[in-house]
Amino acid sequence: MQTLHVELGDRRYPIFIGSDLDTSHLLAPYLKGKQVMVVTNNTVQPLYLQHYLDALAANDKIVASCVLPDGERYKDIEHLNLIFDALLEAGFNRDCTVLALGGGVIGDMAGFASACFQRGVYFVQVPTTLLSQVDSSVGGKTGINHPLGKNMIGAFQQPQVVLADMSHLASLPPRELSAGLAEVIKYALLGDLDFLCWLEQHMEQLVAGDRQLLAEAVYRSCAHKARIVASDEKEQGERALLNLGHTFGHAIESYLGYGVWLHGEAIATGMVMAADLSQRLGWISSADVERCKNILLRAQLPVACPKIPLEKFLAYMSHDKKVLNGQLRLVLLQQLGQAVITKDFDVEAMQQAILAHQDATLTV
Amino acid sequence: MQTLHVELGDRRYPIFIGSDLDTSHLLAPYLKGKQVMVVTNNTVQPLYLQHYLDALAANDKIVASCVLPDGERYKDIEHLNLIFDALLEAGFNRDCTVLALGGGVIGDMAGFASACFQRGVYFVQVPTTLLSQVDSSVGGKTGINHPLGKNMIGAFQQPQVVLADMSHLASLPPRELSAGLAEVIKYALLGDLDFLCWLEQHMEQLVAGDRQLLAEAVYRSCAHKARIVASDEKEQGERALLNLGHTFGHAIESYLGYGVWLHGEAIATGMVMAADLSQRLGWISSADVERCKNILLRAQLPVACPKIPLEKFLAYMSHDKKVLNGQLRLVLLQQLGQAVITKDFDVEAMQQAILAHQDATLTV
Repeated sequence: MQTLHVELGDRRYPIFIGSDLDTSHLLAPYLKGKQVMVVTNNTVQPLYLQHYLDALAANDKIVASCVLPDGERYKDIEHLNLIFDALLEAGFNRDCTVLALGGGVIGDMAGFASACFQRGVYFVQVPTTLLSQVDSSVGGKTGINHPLGKNMIGAFQQPQVVLADMSHLASLPPRELSAGLAEVIKYALLGDLDFLCWLEQHMEQLVAGDRQLLAEAVYRSCAHKARIVASDEKEQGERALLNLGHTFGHAIESYLGYGVWLHGEAIATGMVMAADLSQRLGWISSADVERCKNILLRAQLPVACPKIPLEKFLAYMSHDKKVLNGQLRLVLLQQLGQAVITKDFDVEAMQQAILAHQDATLTV
Repeated sequence: MQTLHVELGDRRYPIFIGSDLDTSHLLAPYLKGKQVMVVTNNTVQPLYLQHYLDALAANDKIVASCVLPDGERYKDIEHLNLIFDALLEAGFNRDCTVLALGGGVIGDMAGFASACFQRGVYFVQVPTTLLSQVDSSVGGKTGINHPLGKNMIGAFQQPQVVLADMSHLASLPPRELSAGLAEVIKYALLGDLDFLCWLEQHMEQLVAGDRQLLAEAVYRSCAHKARIVASDEKEQGERALLNLGHTFGHAIESYLGYGVWLHGEAIATGMVMAADLSQRLGWISSADVERCKNILLRAQLPVACPKIPLEKFLAYMSHDKKVLNGQLRLVLLQQLGQAVITKDFDVEAMQQAILAHQDATLTV
């Protein structure tokens, strides 16, 4: 087991990364009150809920659970309210803990609920997908979607502790493992060329689910994100680098409808568009763009999206939160392994980069 | 005009208190982005909305408004969502400001919406009732109700600036002015015997709407609250003193149904119950209890509530947020002008204090 600390002053917290973690023992020091609400979904429930209820009972906790339907399309205000219903029906107080057991959607919703319930209670994360282990478990971004935009309503809420257990990845569909690898590759592309080389050595074993290599990939990804988040918790500056591929990706997700493409799949194609635009601006070579595409393809990820009318694509991009004072900012690659945030780019080049990675033969 | 600063480090903000304030000039330095969403209700809209829209236009802002139905019963997740709808339909970004123009309900909802929209945008408060001027404009507590409890979902969100304009109180129904005076009296009872004497000298003029005296009462109330909030923003300790009368009052409000009694009316009777219990514990004299009742009666406030079955009253009290680890904590009076938080009280004495201030002849 490896331990990583996210350094956020008095909200510093550990991430435990390994296989078959000793849940009960690891959670014990981080559960403050007596009451714990486990929020999960109906896919994870039959697999792991009982294990965590037992671990909490072993810690002498008063436990309740709230099971939501699985899927990004339920990440809305209506289903958020079901968590509040469960907390109030259980009679839970200000010193309770909300434990998120599931992927990114569950983490986002349970985290946001914990930020709002009684104006803030404790939060613990047990991410059960690779994507949530490397992404939402670090940084404290929580929230829900709105019909007019993704993650438009939310809060910054840091957990007390995160348990990233590789054994939970065994039950993950291959498509979701690949979606998680998209975020892993993102960390390499935006800030760590060594890590990109490491991924190029091990991608097939990662896709096959090698737990030791996955744990190493999770550790390096979280360490990278933790360093950025510690220096810029509220995304005033450097943290926006983590959005490499996201402005393009959000447009793809929004147009196709949440959940049709997985978040990681949209980000993969979004990163290719960002790399392509970086090349059009003369920052990276076409060989660099190919290297991006290759590592994504080896991770079984899409590098082109279905045909989307350009004006719709642009409209969805402008709904993205990376618009400041009405001005679109993009995360692009200064070089491979070094991203920058910029609002100085040629709009026509951006449109070409989008169109170059649409595939009219793809159907949703 | 008087200016009071709430000292919260880098979230320090001013409250401007006076009559016929120069809105445009005062707001200008505190509006960060270009976009301002004015949230108000259908009672305030015809009275003051245009004035503020003009003041914002004079500052060259892009302005939109969201008008909610007036009343505590609309302080729910469904109406909160209308604010998000308005913000997204207007295409507002992370650097926008939400301006609350109205009483406590509008302040709570607009403030909570500003805390959650895009994980937090700017917030400005223009409280138009006495209650909101002395209470919700200081401290940053925002939120909505849930069918199972009041203010159960919310956030701490500090405004950039607060404008408390006494001229807006001219349109306030007398019953609402009195409800605001209940909170003013609360500050005197919990921590400022001099202020109680001042109120005893001026109560009839305050009830009659004397602007200069009201401004002084608002200034002293806000100064008192600001001092407490600055030392305990997240209500870990001293801030809970501000809940004098609130645990009893919340039970009355919850039982009668939100909005049947005004918040200040419920708090008035709740303070009498707290004073009565303090006397039963031997802390204050029966003359002190009479003094509490008298100042409340002179402010046209109720000092007894309709008959409520005891077990229901207690059940609603235990839903209050002042329950820590399942243990009820009450704010009581150590002496007149000095409140304390305690969980050491005789439960039977508490029940007697509740029953002593119920009036079977009162109908709702």
